[in-house]
Amino acid sequence: MKILLIGGNGTIGKKVAAGLSLQHELIFAARTTGDIQVDITSATSIEEMFRASGIIDACVCTAGTGYYGPFDTMTANDMLPGIEGKLMGQINLVLIGKSYLAEGGSFTLTSGIAANHPARHGSCVATINGAINSFVLAASQELRQDRRINVVSPGLVEDSAERYGHLFPGYNLVPMVKVVNAYKLSIEGAINGKILKVFS
Amino acid sequence: MKILLIGGNGTIGKKVAAGLSLQHELIFAARTTGDIQVDITSATSIEEMFRASGIIDACVCTAGTGYYGPFDTMTANDMLPGIEGKLMGQINLVLIGKSYLAEGGSFTLTSGIAANHPARHGSCVATINGAINSFVLAASQELRQDRRINVVSPGLVEDSAERYGHLFPGYNLVPMVKVVNAYKLSIEGAINGKILKVFS
Repeated sequence: MKILLIGGNGTIGKKVAAGLSLQHELIFAARTTGDIQVDITSATSIEEMFRASGIIDACVCTAGTGYYGPFDTMTANDMLPGIEGKLMGQINLVLIGKSYLAEGGSFTLTSGIAANHPARHGSCVATINGAINSFVLAASQELRQDRRINVVSPGLVEDSAERYGHLFPGYNLVPMVKVVNAYKLSIEGAINGKILKVFS
Repeated sequence: MKILLIGGNGTIGKKVAAGLSLQHELIFAARTTGDIQVDITSATSIEEMFRASGIIDACVCTAGTGYYGPFDTMTANDMLPGIEGKLMGQINLVLIGKSYLAEGGSFTLTSGIAANHPARHGSCVATINGAINSFVLAASQELRQDRRINVVSPGLVEDSAERYGHLFPGYNLVPMVKVVNAYKLSIEGAINGKILKVFS
């Protein structure tokens, strides 16, 4: 398959890329690196990315973060970059990208455990992840010509433990191979409209 | 209790107001009617509303809608009013309003069945509702001084059947009294961080 991977240089993206690269042709898109540069907060930039990639069999997004900080002092402005990026950016990848997705092709978005089990200071990320999960449920019903869409919702992944583990006391570490498998299941499997929760 | 009700002239808001008015002092806020005019897409307008209401025991929002339309042609711009209103508007009610909420007071937001069971053409509303549900899970952990927050997620309510029933084939009608009870449970009960799903 020809797979467009947005955010392939991130913690999760790197492992997903490694897991897919033997069997698939990968096109990397990221803000400053990769084969194509893209700013997912911009619809124009997304459109240009797809024009550059051409028709693809799968579009995978592991890009996008959101504000972490005390609820007491958080403002809507703090939330804005995440809302415009991980939320509306991923939605725009689908709304715009469906014209560039081959029949039977798939989108795989990324949300996260915060949608269901938010940690302290995680209300912005929870909001974004909950939104993406529900968007995928809805979009999966209306994509045409056997196109599919799923979302991977990872818990605290092994490769983030050192950097972010202190923010998630009591969260079980998720092996990277399980996360990669969820993306594979979405891309190579037949599932549609699933929220693949990779945590326990 | 002194209760600020935003959207008390809507389908659900009217019944919630009727159900609360005998036992509580209600302050109505809405875009053009009510005791206080508010545009929930504007943080400034929300701040002014709370300054006018003063300290309250409960803040209830039944305002806010979202785009309904074919997924094929939907754009991010179609989604924007709902994202700025029902999503960020309700979040801003909490972020700003917590300074005006008495100790032990409660927020009650409104999402909807689309978060879990979206109908055709409902991907924008699904996105918003999923976001609000997860926001409430997170916010409930960080509100201080016994302040609480819950969200009511109604299905297709009886009073909307005539106007919107055709958009929800196979959805069971929810009696208004059950919806009103969910708001009462959030306001007068002790629950915190609950998604009150009023559908079956």
